[in-house]
Amino acid sequence: MRIILCGFGVVGQSLAKLLASRADDLYKKYSIKPKVVAVSDSKGYIIDKQGVNLIKTIESKQKFGTITKYHDNNKYDYSSSNLIDNIESDILIETTPSNYEDAEPGMTNIITAMKKKMHVISVNKGPLALAFPSLTEMARHNKIILRFSGTVGGGTPILNYAKNSLYGEKILSFSGILNGTTNYILTKIEHGMTFNSALADARKKGYVEANESLDLDGLDSAAKLVILANWIMGMKVTLSDISINGIRNINQNDIRTASKNHCVLKLISQCNQKLNVGLQEIHHNDPLCVDGTLNAISFTSEHSGTQTIIGHGAGGIETASSIIRDMINIKQNIPNNEI
Amino acid sequence: MRIILCGFGVVGQSLAKLLASRADDLYKKYSIKPKVVAVSDSKGYIIDKQGVNLIKTIESKQKFGTITKYHDNNKYDYSSSNLIDNIESDILIETTPSNYEDAEPGMTNIITAMKKKMHVISVNKGPLALAFPSLTEMARHNKIILRFSGTVGGGTPILNYAKNSLYGEKILSFSGILNGTTNYILTKIEHGMTFNSALADARKKGYVEANESLDLDGLDSAAKLVILANWIMGMKVTLSDISINGIRNINQNDIRTASKNHCVLKLISQCNQKLNVGLQEIHHNDPLCVDGTLNAISFTSEHSGTQTIIGHGAGGIETASSIIRDMINIKQNIPNNEI
Repeated sequence: MRIILCGFGVVGQSLAKLLASRADDLYKKYSIKPKVVAVSDSKGYIIDKQGVNLIKTIESKQKFGTITKYHDNNKYDYSSSNLIDNIESDILIETTPSNYEDAEPGMTNIITAMKKKMHVISVNKGPLALAFPSLTEMARHNKIILRFSGTVGGGTPILNYAKNSLYGEKILSFSGILNGTTNYILTKIEHGMTFNSALADARKKGYVEANESLDLDGLDSAAKLVILANWIMGMKVTLSDISINGIRNINQNDIRTASKNHCVLKLISQCNQKLNVGLQEIHHNDPLCVDGTLNAISFTSEHSGTQTIIGHGAGGIETASSIIRDMINIKQNIPNNEI
Repeated sequence: MRIILCGFGVVGQSLAKLLASRADDLYKKYSIKPKVVAVSDSKGYIIDKQGVNLIKTIESKQKFGTITKYHDNNKYDYSSSNLIDNIESDILIETTPSNYEDAEPGMTNIITAMKKKMHVISVNKGPLALAFPSLTEMARHNKIILRFSGTVGGGTPILNYAKNSLYGEKILSFSGILNGTTNYILTKIEHGMTFNSALADARKKGYVEANESLDLDGLDSAAKLVILANWIMGMKVTLSDISINGIRNINQNDIRTASKNHCVLKLISQCNQKLNVGLQEIHHNDPLCVDGTLNAISFTSEHSGTQTIIGHGAGGIETASSIIRDMINIKQNIPNNEI
């Protein structure tokens, strides 16, 4: 299974470690022999058709801040999408940062790969948030598999649960806490911190994205809502269909009112006919009422009542493990197991 | 899909209603045409090879307390297992009450059906608790499918989640609240009631089994632990391998100590090398700390962290919906979709 890995941040590096440490296990249990033929980061690329040495790649990244020192003479002048065009591979794993303006470079990477009939695993939410319906249509047209388990819930298999564990059931609505950073900040505020000191605390712990608007203004939560609504409810929606309010406008009055009702304010992504992200009062006893960086989502189905899944939504190793699950899923779903 | 339905209590009747109301849906979406050819309750049987009228069966049960008035002249003198021996069917659905002495009549029903190459769906925990390893071996030997989604978590697909949503992952340990009745009683005690008044309250609400020892002494929780340990962890264990302590010995001292630690006492079924059921302190902030009749289970996996699923564990309609999911699963897993 030849792999091009785009992006070598926390998730990319965790994946490299997992692929190195689980090589035997993946081959024995799933007949998967992953061979990473190219890796890109924001500064450049490394290519080795015989298989990139993943440990050496991590060392290069950690020592020099880029993977490009892996080769002594790194003279490739591909752009990211040219790389995908020029290197033969079975799968593209797209882990570049999510961006909700134009979703680049992920969007071009994914489209280029699909046109070349590569299967695609994306943990980058940008392209899916802006163009889920057309990307899944393009995957169908090119007869390739597009997977994205890590985009919602990190290592917690929320998408798979709703799609597969509840087969034969109709999910009527769902609502969830899908962003751990804002949940951490809201938990701190509930315990008495001001918004600014809670934010500073979250920054110090490394929980806040480089572009903090993605967390605070609800964009990350909304992107995950788009993915859930398309994948689980069969809607054809994009980010522009979501009504989005973040957590910046939280005030002491609202917190006190919630508290009187035995509730706390949580940033909820909700699909109940309408799609919206915003602060809601959640009762202390509601299973959805989780603290800290936890994510939680409640699905209400026609015959099985309401069910809640709770887990840590992010983390490099957890998200990398979701990529491995997607690799296994792709392997099991292609005819003749040909890769 | 010909069905023999053994047991016509709350779950059996809910299933009959669902089968009647979802007939179109099951055929259109899953090509399943369920035809119930026989139904038994504790007083007798009804048989109709053309398909039992399910609505009329429910009416008979509700009016006369037994289904046997369905026919004007009900002269069959089969015993339960004879019924299965004498009537051709594709599936046995076993919903008779769980019993942890000898697991009868469920055990004989299931074994008779498997020998006749019927697939089996059991929501009866007794046979699985006493003989999981040999029943699954017998299913393999007879090349039939044995399913039991409703035995743990009712409508909440806990077994399916752990088995399928976490594929490619190794579950290291789990612990859960698997009995809603004792959780209800413990919640009431936590809020100030005595054990006896909490029990009386639970009885009044219809939450307590006819044989209340099954709930209070932890047998129901232990049976579910046996099923999880076999199915998810690949252990080969039965009820006698579980260390079981119920909730009868709860005392005010323990409750106060727990409270000082910001914890509450919960009846936990745990698999962490050893298998045991007993009261444990659970921290208020732990997602496992759910109130009322809710069930919850936390799985800790090698790479994906700890994940918790919460839902209502019982309820006729929820458990019936799990039987429908098992029917769909069997239909999809048999060669040529021949039933």
